[in-house]
Amino acid sequence: MIPKQTVNMTDVAQRSGVSIASVSRALRGRPGVSPATRARILSAARDLSYVVSPEASHLAGGATGRVGVVVPRVDAWFYSTMLAGIAGEFDTVGVDLVLCALPDATARHRFFESLPLRRKVDAVIVVSVPLTAREHTRLDQLGLPTVFVGGDHPDGNQPWVGVDDELAAQQAVGHLLRIGHRDIAMIQAGDREGTRWATDEARIRGFHRQLGDAGLTDPNVVTVEWGIDGGARGMEILLSRPLLPTAVFCHSDEIALGALRTLRKSGVSVPQQISVIGVDDHPAADLSELTTVAQPVREQGRIAAQQVLAQLDPEAPETAPTVTTLPTRLVIRGSTAPPR
Amino acid sequence: MIPKQTVNMTDVAQRSGVSIASVSRALRGRPGVSPATRARILSAARDLSYVVSPEASHLAGGATGRVGVVVPRVDAWFYSTMLAGIAGEFDTVGVDLVLCALPDATARHRFFESLPLRRKVDAVIVVSVPLTAREHTRLDQLGLPTVFVGGDHPDGNQPWVGVDDELAAQQAVGHLLRIGHRDIAMIQAGDREGTRWATDEARIRGFHRQLGDAGLTDPNVVTVEWGIDGGARGMEILLSRPLLPTAVFCHSDEIALGALRTLRKSGVSVPQQISVIGVDDHPAADLSELTTVAQPVREQGRIAAQQVLAQLDPEAPETAPTVTTLPTRLVIRGSTAPPR
Repeated sequence: MIPKQTVNMTDVAQRSGVSIASVSRALRGRPGVSPATRARILSAARDLSYVVSPEASHLAGGATGRVGVVVPRVDAWFYSTMLAGIAGEFDTVGVDLVLCALPDATARHRFFESLPLRRKVDAVIVVSVPLTAREHTRLDQLGLPTVFVGGDHPDGNQPWVGVDDELAAQQAVGHLLRIGHRDIAMIQAGDREGTRWATDEARIRGFHRQLGDAGLTDPNVVTVEWGIDGGARGMEILLSRPLLPTAVFCHSDEIALGALRTLRKSGVSVPQQISVIGVDDHPAADLSELTTVAQPVREQGRIAAQQVLAQLDPEAPETAPTVTTLPTRLVIRGSTAPPR
Repeated sequence: MIPKQTVNMTDVAQRSGVSIASVSRALRGRPGVSPATRARILSAARDLSYVVSPEASHLAGGATGRVGVVVPRVDAWFYSTMLAGIAGEFDTVGVDLVLCALPDATARHRFFESLPLRRKVDAVIVVSVPLTAREHTRLDQLGLPTVFVGGDHPDGNQPWVGVDDELAAQQAVGHLLRIGHRDIAMIQAGDREGTRWATDEARIRGFHRQLGDAGLTDPNVVTVEWGIDGGARGMEILLSRPLLPTAVFCHSDEIALGALRTLRKSGVSVPQQISVIGVDDHPAADLSELTTVAQPVREQGRIAAQQVLAQLDPEAPETAPTVTTLPTRLVIRGSTAPPR
């Protein structure tokens, strides 16, 4: 068992030269303490190995010191990078991160019906989880500050951080058009369970809008499962059709990487016979010379964490919910070239 | 605010046809309830949207319902895949996962000095975090059941899950020797902060042992930072030396992928001029036709989670701490071939 803690808040207050009330506020992540003072108090608490008891804090009317982070899955570059950004911010202020992964419809259903985070966290960050109207209502019933990252844009009453996925698709297709492509296919992501993913839908809109603006209609489109294997399968389908497009827009780098694998195995040369472009700037995109539209993922996590921490600060000025749209940018590598 | 919960344990007990004591045990993850009964109780609780209050549970002498998971970082394939395995197991029994990432020496120091998980979790899983003697002592002072995954093998008093990294290196080098290589270099991972990583040290031992058994000494060795860029730099160094080896063993697939990038940019053909092999079976290894030694990462996470849950069960039979070593296996792809 842990020996009973012999250091108390008075010791921390004395060492940091502030009132006990300030120590209490700082250690519970509450407002009313300047950043410099908070840093001094946390440093003193560390020196003394003092840890505030979350239960004591709770009973005293304080916060739990925890924030829930809900992600569709953990083991994909986008989500793990996002988590790293969030975890880094939480670490600097001593907030604990409670991780909830909802990898399938069953897990999502269980999560929204039983609301396991209820009474356990002070706030929630929801990363790219597609929400039905009922799920939105259930989240509201948590009664907790919530920040959304990516995916569905909330109705304007809640903070959101993300990129403009429609614009990202337009940037990708715009690049292909500028270098001369007219026969541009799309390998788009679809969900086996029929869940609507806002990101995919936005990228589909961007693709068709950009082609439409160029007077091009009826493009070759394939829908596959998200991921490398889906992309590989999507390209197999495109190769099986009578005419090979000169370029293909893939919904994500992972889909594009799968498509490249199929092309390599089929002996189709990139970019000579077909150009391939993705979205994300996944680390493997650089390795595979994949042209892509980069989005800042870690930064989205960082900003979401900062916003949720600001919402937990009752002394922060009351402002309208913040919608933060971060820029995406075209990264040209070797997988795209003018058509022959 | 959340409306006061109107459903109570009596309702759950009635619906599931068991005693209130069983409901209490099942919902707090305590023993004494059969898996079938537990499932029925959890289902009834879900149907009624009943959530046990962790604080109430704590005050009643129960557990916090949380387990801490400590990882060096989140945004790398190995750790995010491990986390997914752990999170999946925890989700099935309703245990919350508190995530602690220790990406650098500062974060590690802060973690072990202030022990932020103290009084907040029932148990801890430590994934591949290198521990000094003092850090081991501090972990012990948490007084919590702890399961280690990968990295340092504990002294036999605590459960450990992992692979035999020395053997993995021997499998990789053995493959190169069998197909005829004699001039085999190594790109090994080293830590800028001087931290000793048990995995790296084991792979170094395996490399030298396998070469020594074949009567080969003084191999060409380069030490780089872990990761793709480190691997790219390591191969640049090898290319700058007078004689190019015929094969190179890389400490991880990410190092190997970086090495392949450098070789491609330098116009050195793989496997014709040099064979490259890694360890892990990272998803990008398949994309890059990289021969590797695969390890089951998600499975390590699953088993660690199962072991920590078993340790939280006071009715589980008292047994010696379990050391689980999972097998690694050679996966031959296009990046290795006999020397010319």
